[in-house]
Amino acid sequence: MPTTSVPTTSVPTTSVPRTSVYSAAQLAERFGLVLHGDGAVQVHGVGTLARAEAGQLAFLANPKYRSQLAQTSASVVVMRADDASDFSGTALIARDPYVAFARLAALFEPRPRHAPGIHASTDIDPSAVVANDAHVGAFVSIGARSRVEAGARIGPGCVIGDDCVVGAGCELVAGVTLVARVRLGQRVLVHPGAVLGADGFGLAMDRGGVQTGGPQNDAPGEPHWLKVPQLGGVLIGDDCEIGANTTIDRGAIEDTVLEADVRLDNQIQIGHNVHIGAHTAMAGCSAVAGSARIGRYCLIGGGAGVLGHLEICDKVVVTAMSLVTASIREPGEYSSGTPLMDNRSWRKNAARFKQLDAFVRRTGGRREP
Amino acid sequence: MPTTSVPTTSVPTTSVPRTSVYSAAQLAERFGLVLHGDGAVQVHGVGTLARAEAGQLAFLANPKYRSQLAQTSASVVVMRADDASDFSGTALIARDPYVAFARLAALFEPRPRHAPGIHASTDIDPSAVVANDAHVGAFVSIGARSRVEAGARIGPGCVIGDDCVVGAGCELVAGVTLVARVRLGQRVLVHPGAVLGADGFGLAMDRGGVQTGGPQNDAPGEPHWLKVPQLGGVLIGDDCEIGANTTIDRGAIEDTVLEADVRLDNQIQIGHNVHIGAHTAMAGCSAVAGSARIGRYCLIGGGAGVLGHLEICDKVVVTAMSLVTASIREPGEYSSGTPLMDNRSWRKNAARFKQLDAFVRRTGGRREP
Amino acid sequence: MPTTSVPTTSVPTTSVPRTSVYSAAQLAERFGLVLHGDGAVQVHGVGTLARAEAGQLAFLANPKYRSQLAQTSASVVVMRADDASDFSGTALIARDPYVAFARLAALFEPRPRHAPGIHASTDIDPSAVVANDAHVGAFVSIGARSRVEAGARIGPGCVIGDDCVVGAGCELVAGVTLVARVRLGQRVLVHPGAVLGADGFGLAMDRGGVQTGGPQNDAPGEPHWLKVPQLGGVLIGDDCEIGANTTIDRGAIEDTVLEADVRLDNQIQIGHNVHIGAHTAMAGCSAVAGSARIGRYCLIGGGAGVLGHLEICDKVVVTAMSLVTASIREPGEYSSGTPLMDNRSWRKNAARFKQLDAFVRRTGGRREP
Repeated sequence: MPTTSVPTTSVPTTSVPRTSVYSAAQLAERFGLVLHGDGAVQVHGVGTLARAEAGQLAFLANPKYRSQLAQTSASVVVMRADDASDFSGTALIARDPYVAFARLAALFEPRPRHAPGIHASTDIDPSAVVANDAHVGAFVSIGARSRVEAGARIGPGCVIGDDCVVGAGCELVAGVTLVARVRLGQRVLVHPGAVLGADGFGLAMDRGGVQTGGPQNDAPGEPHWLKVPQLGGVLIGDDCEIGANTTIDRGAIEDTVLEADVRLDNQIQIGHNVHIGAHTAMAGCSAVAGSARIGRYCLIGGGAGVLGHLEICDKVVVTAMSLVTASIREPGEYSSGTPLMDNRSWRKNAARFKQLDAFVRRTGGRREP
Repeated sequence: MPTTSVPTTSVPTTSVPRTSVYSAAQLAERFGLVLHGDGAVQVHGVGTLARAEAGQLAFLANPKYRSQLAQTSASVVVMRADDASDFSGTALIARDPYVAFARLAALFEPRPRHAPGIHASTDIDPSAVVANDAHVGAFVSIGARSRVEAGARIGPGCVIGDDCVVGAGCELVAGVTLVARVRLGQRVLVHPGAVLGADGFGLAMDRGGVQTGGPQNDAPGEPHWLKVPQLGGVLIGDDCEIGANTTIDRGAIEDTVLEADVRLDNQIQIGHNVHIGAHTAMAGCSAVAGSARIGRYCLIGGGAGVLGHLEICDKVVVTAMSLVTASIREPGEYSSGTPLMDNRSWRKNAARFKQLDAFVRRTGGRREP
Repeated sequence: MPTTSVPTTSVPTTSVPRTSVYSAAQLAERFGLVLHGDGAVQVHGVGTLARAEAGQLAFLANPKYRSQLAQTSASVVVMRADDASDFSGTALIARDPYVAFARLAALFEPRPRHAPGIHASTDIDPSAVVANDAHVGAFVSIGARSRVEAGARIGPGCVIGDDCVVGAGCELVAGVTLVARVRLGQRVLVHPGAVLGADGFGLAMDRGGVQTGGPQNDAPGEPHWLKVPQLGGVLIGDDCEIGANTTIDRGAIEDTVLEADVRLDNQIQIGHNVHIGAHTAMAGCSAVAGSARIGRYCLIGGGAGVLGHLEICDKVVVTAMSLVTASIREPGEYSSGTPLMDNRSWRKNAARFKQLDAFVRRTGGRREP
């Protein structure tokens, strides 16, 4: 991949979004879908089944919306073969309509094209290297020995520290911070406000005195926290997506690692030295404490937590706001918490929970292992 | 509203805060309150009942602080008529002292005045329009076709993407990101680090093969995530407030919507296509998953969660750290979770919870519906 | 402390990281540790027991890693005397090996040195004062009457509002926002995306009409939120550390306070007028609601919550994702929640929880106090 340091020039940020028109037959051909109905129908955008207008393409994946088929104004609907039997309009038949829709919709996405070049208002260390066809927006800082590879886009206000790599085709949307030693694979998408490579939360309680490693003449003083230097980096695999305001700490000694195709929603916290397997997805506000290891193809629900130093095997689902307090060795779905109730009922049941052990003993409950 | 593109000029950011002095009689007159005591007492600021000094105004709303009335040094106290009977100082009587205090305190707020104009260090797309009397601070980017309306203030380091509208009288304090297609009504206040309009978390698992919409010659490969394009925007009603580091994703196809006067605290996550009714307030770290619909005048407690595609009717209170897993059709207060206990007791009770169903069956419990 | 306003000049951001080599004997001498084995062994960096290479120093603190001692390639290992008895390599004996390692590792930390000076691209109010030997990076804004003291480092993209103080030796890594009236003590370290001093979440529901403090001719209208002005500041003690994307709101009237040596991880929310005692540490995603008061030497687990206006005494441990709903008067460990289970078992037990009070009554349970 040819990369070079580009002279600082002011470049236009965006060009006008393209508009595209395709016939249903063209879409069927392009995506390997079966066409039902009029292949000449034109499509210039997408909409929901309920509100799409003529000229728009919609999809039906969730059976609960099937009744909307009769009224939809969408010109073309992507659906399963089963659902098409009594549909009089134009349909594209897909085994997985949501996957097909994902591909189709990308055709109509007015994603702004960013011209290659480096905005005049950037602050780039002389030892950093930016590929010729990369885009670096306004008010971006890039630190020593860092590298921005082919076709990458660094949006306005990003800060890239020292010794970082932004791989080919990556996009840092805006206001993203890579603190130090953060290496992104190819096509990684990082949303605004995400912070990768901040120091992990490593603290030792210094109780003073000799032989703790303090100077021999340490004043006794009161016990206080000693920061444990955080020296590792962050390694992000190809095709990962990192949500807005998500934080991924650098490792203490070795790296924090996300394998390829890991998908993190917004406001997620990943502690130092965590390792997340390929294709795992985590929903908003979930958190993983230091040195935990999560497998491949896991789904971690919103607001769920994983304690430190645990291992979770492949294909584990953790439901929303559950807390994982021990390693999980078997694939499957796991939960904690209690159901939502009206507050009055909840108070009564919660009061009983406080006495549950005593109650079970009184009523002759065996002590469970 | 007359708006125009303003030439780039360097402007001073702030002027000196004003200082104001009012007599108790003037305050009573201005806010329609009943005066008890000496109307000539001068007030130049506000304080707490416990620590206010002479010249300051305090308030008494929570009965538990009533005992502080006897010792307060505040020159004027806002309170209910009931509380004033044995108070020898100067009082302003209000039916709702906290509301009255909110208005009174605003008189003394040293909110910096920002001179109209655009800082020299901004990067504004030629197609963007900024009102003459708007303020745009240092290191701000504004994208194509975006509009900043009369009297709005864009603080330093904000990024406004393409096709956004910042309504009249809005304030983006600092470091706020509006990614794309974000439209704010009038007088919306957005605190630092908030990200509006980032992509929603839309993913389809592509298992490969034909008729999923992939190219017919798709290599089998291993199943992987496919990003579903996020094409919608974010629509924020008048008088909303968005807390620091809060995230509101753009809709997948249609918009994510906050109606007027919605108040979001810090670190909140709002998923794509969520709809929040007017006057609803959400406390810090709460989260709403995609396509959920929350009614008007709801109160969502700190750290609470709402799963996707649910509906919550008007006037629902969800207590802190509760998880809403089904739609709520009746106004009222709802909770989940268990009470806090010392860890030893908690462990015993929690162990019993794991065996609760077995225990109930053993002791002849009926299976509940 | 001599401070002065420094002329705007462009300065290089970093110098090359130092590399250091020490013998085991030098390290023993410097840190007051007992040497076992060959004092001439050279160390130039640190590693984990499992993966360290020759020339690296590792540590053994957690007994579960003791078996790794036999295979380690580390040239020197820090450990307790007990663990050294059957170790044939070079050891440094410490009473607390983790504390000793924290000090030792700092020797090898390639922390970039930042040259004193102010980057050319900053926007600094004329009334602000920056110490001669402070470093102010690119795209930084500093507001009126603010002060940056000796040796402080303000990284790229930080926004410092009006009336703030950044004490001697502080570091704001990058993209940190101090909104207004935020005063940091000495050696405070603030990670990227943190927002200190945003408005607290103060709202009063204005139901309209006279004697609420609204104008006497208030239109009836519908009840709506009234913002309560937030006039206080934030006061952060010496040696505090504030994590990435953490938020600490300014007080409503008085200050929000963190005493010395408080350590906050990432994504934490601290409400207005909270007071946190010295040496308390809070893990990621925890939250404290307004006016709560937390003691000294507390440990708040990840995702845990503390409701408003509560008091927690010194030396309290709250486990992860627990919710504190009442004041805690006794030191100790506290928890709430339920254990993680496979989802099928959890559903059965959770359904029983909804009927727990009824069940206990039916089976003759006494009503607990």
